[in-house]
Amino acid sequence: MKRVASGILPVIAIDRKAPKPLHRQIYDAYRTAIIEGSLRPRQRVLSTRALAAELGVSRLPVLNAYGQLLAEGYFESRVGAGTVVSSALPEQFTASGAALQAARSESRYAPRPAAHRCSLLPQRETSPWLQGLGAFAVGQVAYDQFPLQVWSRLVARHCRSMNARSFHYGDHMGLRALRETVASYLRTARSLRCEADQIMIVSGSQQAIELSARVLLDPGNRVWIEEPGYHLAKAVFATKGCHLVPVPVDEEGLNVAEGIKRYRKARAAFVTPSHQFPLGVTMSASRRLQLLEWAQTNGSWIIEDDYDSEYRYESSPIPSLQGIDANARVIYIGTISKVLFPSLRLGYVVIPPKLIDRFVATRWAMDLGCPGIYQEVLADFIGEGHFARHIRRMRILYRERRSALVASLRKEMGSAVEVMGSEAGMHLTVNLQNRADDVRIAERASSQNLRLWPLSVNYLGEASRHGFILGFGSTAIEEIPRAVRKLRKLVEGT
Amino acid sequence: MKRVASGILPVIAIDRKAPKPLHRQIYDAYRTAIIEGSLRPRQRVLSTRALAAELGVSRLPVLNAYGQLLAEGYFESRVGAGTVVSSALPEQFTASGAALQAARSESRYAPRPAAHRCSLLPQRETSPWLQGLGAFAVGQVAYDQFPLQVWSRLVARHCRSMNARSFHYGDHMGLRALRETVASYLRTARSLRCEADQIMIVSGSQQAIELSARVLLDPGNRVWIEEPGYHLAKAVFATKGCHLVPVPVDEEGLNVAEGIKRYRKARAAFVTPSHQFPLGVTMSASRRLQLLEWAQTNGSWIIEDDYDSEYRYESSPIPSLQGIDANARVIYIGTISKVLFPSLRLGYVVIPPKLIDRFVATRWAMDLGCPGIYQEVLADFIGEGHFARHIRRMRILYRERRSALVASLRKEMGSAVEVMGSEAGMHLTVNLQNRADDVRIAERASSQNLRLWPLSVNYLGEASRHGFILGFGSTAIEEIPRAVRKLRKLVEGT
Repeated sequence: MKRVASGILPVIAIDRKAPKPLHRQIYDAYRTAIIEGSLRPRQRVLSTRALAAELGVSRLPVLNAYGQLLAEGYFESRVGAGTVVSSALPEQFTASGAALQAARSESRYAPRPAAHRCSLLPQRETSPWLQGLGAFAVGQVAYDQFPLQVWSRLVARHCRSMNARSFHYGDHMGLRALRETVASYLRTARSLRCEADQIMIVSGSQQAIELSARVLLDPGNRVWIEEPGYHLAKAVFATKGCHLVPVPVDEEGLNVAEGIKRYRKARAAFVTPSHQFPLGVTMSASRRLQLLEWAQTNGSWIIEDDYDSEYRYESSPIPSLQGIDANARVIYIGTISKVLFPSLRLGYVVIPPKLIDRFVATRWAMDLGCPGIYQEVLADFIGEGHFARHIRRMRILYRERRSALVASLRKEMGSAVEVMGSEAGMHLTVNLQNRADDVRIAERASSQNLRLWPLSVNYLGEASRHGFILGFGSTAIEEIPRAVRKLRKLVEGT
Repeated sequence: MKRVASGILPVIAIDRKAPKPLHRQIYDAYRTAIIEGSLRPRQRVLSTRALAAELGVSRLPVLNAYGQLLAEGYFESRVGAGTVVSSALPEQFTASGAALQAARSESRYAPRPAAHRCSLLPQRETSPWLQGLGAFAVGQVAYDQFPLQVWSRLVARHCRSMNARSFHYGDHMGLRALRETVASYLRTARSLRCEADQIMIVSGSQQAIELSARVLLDPGNRVWIEEPGYHLAKAVFATKGCHLVPVPVDEEGLNVAEGIKRYRKARAAFVTPSHQFPLGVTMSASRRLQLLEWAQTNGSWIIEDDYDSEYRYESSPIPSLQGIDANARVIYIGTISKVLFPSLRLGYVVIPPKLIDRFVATRWAMDLGCPGIYQEVLADFIGEGHFARHIRRMRILYRERRSALVASLRKEMGSAVEVMGSEAGMHLTVNLQNRADDVRIAERASSQNLRLWPLSVNYLGEASRHGFILGFGSTAIEEIPRAVRKLRKLVEGT
């Protein structure tokens, strides 16, 4: 019942000079709107008093028209809901909107309806491993552990106290208070060298990648991407008209020497050094220095996506590339959505000082910023220490889940799978030693409520590994053994 | 005090096998972080218990290190706030981050640091008429009239009841319930022919324009834009590498015949037919039919931005272009931010059925959707009738403000200004008969807290009119006469 808009004034043209009487004009307008499907069954209509006021006419012709519409069964009166469009109209009478649309979509089209570059994107994403919830789904967090009470209290407080300033468009870079806390967090936790002036709040890492690509890259530029690598980053560079240069990833991360061999003059490199997506390795210190050296010598940019750096379970923390870069060649990207919850849609990009104006101008043409309230709430959530506390709790939880998953994989599948990468993040990747068809297995798995993201689809060239990316963020320890047994049966069944 | 992140673990590498004792490693790590500016004065540090747990060491070395840091004045204890970085550190001791940054930003750069296409955008928007609040600011609403109580109640209710589904990424097109209510609203209020399946929720009309351009246009395509027209739409088409074809606007709206003369084969037209920005005219019925006819014959697209269609103060409502288009050539764009409040960041685009997949794929590469909670709240806000009620109240208020402004302009300035456009929207445009330098006047006005958006800057070619766009959404009736007197003095002073 909530899915229709209540009390909306339909488009009624009233002409006082027309020979047709007013009540008839009103009657005709409603009848047409109902027959054509602009008004739908059960939709509430304005009260006669409100309609008369809206149209600037006396109530009499409105009462007259409504009376006739009620009498003929177009309207009905509902106790407590006022007057609504009748729910009992015969089907053939109310041209169903869907049928109308079907007819319309058949109309002749000029050739080449959409942009050429847009056709470079994969069609609507329907891969079963990216749909909905389920064991091993990637990018999901332990929702039941979120401190919802603290969060809602902050949301309610900020919402009640909204004023002209918070209703209005905000700062081009995002809320100042949030940028200050994020800068402080990044300096402390990730060794970034940054000030609040360099932080731009964005809707998540995807927007940050899009924005960086638009500021840094022209069509025809070449970009190093990790092989295997993150599909939505590749989609961004491809739609900018850039050429992707796949650079292999080994146990030390991106193979910089190989990248230089393949295309030294690339304009940018996109990397996930903390926890490579999808293989999960951490880029070694020497590779980091090589990459920075290449960028500096070559005048290239590094886009560092530090998407789940909050969760490392090994002893030695590794400072970000941005933190050891002396030459401001790194654009640093992070997300809050992966730490708190995805529908939050907040992330940030740390911009080299000389590029700030370009980022602002480009962002402003893309959208006019993120909603204000979540920025205010998040600033307090970080500032009051809840953020750090939540990360500490989740680090313990995810470490346990990861250990349980690794133990289960070893027990059930033994040497059939190799667990890859470092102890970090909210997913791990397994390599199938028998090189079974991971896509086919993943498709079959979805009917068993298992979300297996095949490794092979993350390669641009031929996949040198087959396997799965297994998320454990929202998979409870108790569920893990059963889910791994299902996985084993699926792999054995091929 | 809130502007620093609380309780964050700094990057501390602990090496049990090193000859350096643990307490000294911890002491050195903190001291370095403070000297280098990663930790800043007044920032709260972890409790000794929490740090020991994080590092996996006993509490003794931590206590030892903290004791020394306190004794040497790096830390201080604050009642109620635990241990914080000392606020009394000598300036020269803590390398100020700003100074560090300045040094870093001076490092040598490779030539041509940013993308060529990005340089087509205007530099960071600093025009005084677009900054902050003040009389006549455009795009601002009557914040004090917003039903904040109803709204916060809905926000609080939805926030408290968040669950796995609402925490997670949503539907690619936006929340289903919201799309249903928006479709129902548009069918009724704007005569659109649309179903919820065609509605995509976006962050506002700017994102909708960006998205449409990416789906429909390739570099080198020509696009009709209104002359004068909306600067942020032009920015979008320019950064896509499109050529802008300015088509003059007269009292009937876009001059279609002139557009055909200038460049018949344009791939798309961007129009604001309900309330042309900035002149305020409403496109006549015959021009609407001409435009649709041109699009159909020519295989071109029409992007209809209906940004403030909710507010018409004249008798005859005009159905949208989308509603009278039989051939699915119209992309319809609308915004909620202009009706409720700008920092809401919600709008929608109504997509022709055959293009839905393209829009979804393109959007998914740009950002992964809008935050969930405001979508849920808005669906209820519309469904429960608050939206329609708010629009009705605001229509009365804005009509009064507009009348008061027109009366004041006539009284104070008489024939010196011509009030243009139809009775609609939240701003009107005046044409200065003496063709004074509107940009210079606007710059001087800003120091008097008057936000005058000069008309001439909205032209791509030579401005055939000088004047101002005057917003009255957030300018109370009582303020209007005084603001108009200021305006008169500024105009006379030139």
